[in-house]
Formats: sequence, structure tokens, C-alpha cells
Amino acid sequence: MSEAAPNPPALRVDAERNRLALIDAATTVFARRGMEAPLDEVAREAGVGIATLYRRFPERTQLVEAVFEQRMRLYADHAVAAAARALLEPWDAFRDYVTFIFEQQATDTAFADVLIAPLTGSPVFADMHRAAFQATITLVARAHEAGAIRADFSHADLYLATLANAGLVKAARSSGPEASRRLCAYLLESFRPGSRDPLPPVPRVWERTTRT
Amino acid sequence: MSEAAPNPPALRVDAERNRLALIDAATTVFARRGMEAPLDEVAREAGVGIATLYRRFPERTQLVEAVFEQRMRLYADHAVAAAARALLEPWDAFRDYVTFIFEQQATDTAFADVLIAPLTGSPVFADMHRAAFQATITLVARAHEAGAIRADFSHADLYLATLANAGLVKAARSSGPEASRRLCAYLLESFRPGSRDPLPPVPRVWERTTRT
Repeated sequence: MSEAAPNPPALRVDAERNRLALIDAATTVFARRGMEAPLDEVAREAGVGIATLYRRFPERTQLVEAVFEQRMRLYADHAVAAAARALLEPWDAFRDYVTFIFEQQATDTAFADVLIAPLTGSPVFADMHRAAFQATITLVARAHEAGAIRADFSHADLYLATLANAGLVKAARSSGPEASRRLCAYLLESFRPGSRDPLPPVPRVWERTTRT
Repeated sequence: MSEAAPNPPALRVDAERNRLALIDAATTVFARRGMEAPLDEVAREAGVGIATLYRRFPERTQLVEAVFEQRMRLYADHAVAAAARALLEPWDAFRDYVTFIFEQQATDTAFADVLIAPLTGSPVFADMHRAAFQATITLVARAHEAGAIRADFSHADLYLATLANAGLVKAARSSGPEASRRLCAYLLESFRPGSRDPLPPVPRVWERTTRT
């Protein structure tokens, strides 16, 4: 047997469990305290020693990347599920998806920043971001086909809504979640068909980036 | 005649003209470059020498205060006019007022900051801010009495809308004005009566501060 032999199964399972516990803990702590939160708080939250944290994630950026990947996976999973559901329940799928995004933004400001400016470099993250983006295009297209949303709703309006909500959540501080729910209800109301007035155009730059 | 005699009229007129030109110039330059913009740029824009600027406004904070007072006066004038107009044209008065605020925020980020967090210390500013606030309460009350806006619209929703718009304008950068117009159209649509669903409650802290 060579020295590079893999760990025995029990140890690998433990290591993976610790890794996932650390990612979950970091998600919680980063959401609460920001991305600069002390790492010993993350280790404590995960119920492991700081040495274990540094063994799994030698650099903070690796932990941050793992957290963002996990968050983006959640977001992509929701988008894909919403696009599928939109075949049968177009409005409910659309409404619940928008509500989910607004809630995520209101309760996890670190993720909110990622969502509107996905700058992290991991290829896994980029893949999932692309998948989520494509799924939202399908979601909006299906909602349009079913007449569940107003004809002049643009896919770019999802971006517009998340930018507005991110700003509101930040500015409203502890009232962020409540304020965000109300903004969500207002916007959903006006995303439905039956509007009295046509909308002004989507910013031209956005039209280009959201058409694929 | 004592040494403390007032300036002869011609000089006072000149001085006042320079003062107003400097406030206008500072408004333009601050809106474009932020509150830290170089003062010689302000003097140049006003068509006066930098010495004149320092004679009228020995400290930057005095110029900033004068700019904010002027902006708040514009805001208060609009609010008071909208409240009066609401007696005859409640919806138009309400819609045009919201549109005006959104446009101001989109084109003057310095004022946008003041509008959502009026921290400047001048008593003149505080008086005008109070007057504007009271006028918007009257505007909303009159729109409600006329049934021009949905029954569950709260005065606090004006605050909510300005926070969301401020965040959008900042994040959207050069697309800010276009994005802001679209958000404004969406929100106005859902502020009208005839909504399908009730709204979640206004943040409780806001309820308290907006009831007078």
C-alpha cells in the first residue's frame, strides 16, 4: 500500500460531516455577522475545534466560496423547481419563487450581495448561477405563455426587484424582513395582468444582458 | 454712521446673487460628484472666484447646509402643492408627487441620502422637513378619502418606496433613472384600489413614527 492511500471510510465520513457542519455554521454566522465574522465563532457554531476548521478550509476564501456555492445551489434548486412547476401552476410558481428570493435577501444579507453581484470565482458557483439564470428565463417564459403575468413584464424586472429589495432591506435594518414582505406584495400585485398603464422601458443595458 | 452699518443696497444685491449662484452651483456639483466635490469646481460652476465662495461660505458645512435647505424647500413646496391639488385631483396629485420624488432620487443621489435620513442640523431644514412630512400625511389622507388609493395603503409606504428606490438607483448606477421610472410605474399600479390580495403589515416601528 502506498502512503497516498485514501482515508478509511469512517474517517472520510467524519471529515465530510465536519465539512458540511462548518459550511452550515459559516452560513449562519456570515448571515448574522457579515463575511468578516471571526472564524472561531464559526468553529464553535459547528461544534468542532478551530484546528478542524483550518484543516478543512486552510483559507477563509475557501470557506466563503463553499458557503456561496451552497447558497447558490439552494437558489438554483428553487429556480429549477419553479420553472418545472410553472407548467402546471404558472402564477403560483412565479409568486412563490419571487417570495423566496425576497425572503432570502431579507434574512441573509451576505447572500443578498452575491445574488445581485455574483463575483465569486469558483466554477461550480458560476455553473449554478448560470443554471439558476436559465431556469428563471424559463419560469418567466412559461408564466407569460399562460398569461399569468402582465405582457410587458420583462425577465430583467426580476433583477430590478432584487436590487430594490436589497436596498430596502439594508436601509430598513431590523424592519427589513417586514418591509421586504410588503414590497414583495406590492410588486407581485403589479406583476399580474390587468394593469391600467403601460410600463416605461427596461434599462437598455439590462435588456441586452438578460436576453440569451 | 457706525462702522457696523449695513452694506449699500447694490453690494447686498450682488452678494445675494453670488450666494444663490453658489448654492445652485453646489447643488449641481454635489449631485454629480458627491458631497466631497472640490469647492473650486463649485466656484467655477457659479462663475465666481474661490475667494468669493469662502467669503459667503467660510466652511464647507455651511454650503452643504444651504444646499440641503434649498433641496428640502423644493421637496416641501411640492408636497404642499400636491396636498392642495389632492382636493380636486387626488390620484393625479398623489401619482405626480410619487413620480417627482422618484425622479429626484434618481438624479440627485446626495439629496436621496438626505431624504431618507434627514440628519442635517439646521433648524430651517428641520422646519421644512416637518412641513413636507405633514403635507404628505394630508396628501395620503385626501387620496384615501377620495378612494384614489387602496384602503390598506399606509403613509409609511411612501418611506418604503423611497428606501427601495434609493437602493435601486444606487445599485443600477447609470441605469438608475430608467430602472427607477419602471419601479415607480410598478408601485403606482399597485398603490391604486382594486388589489387582489391584502398586504402584509407595515413594519411596526414605522407605524409609530408616521402616526402623528
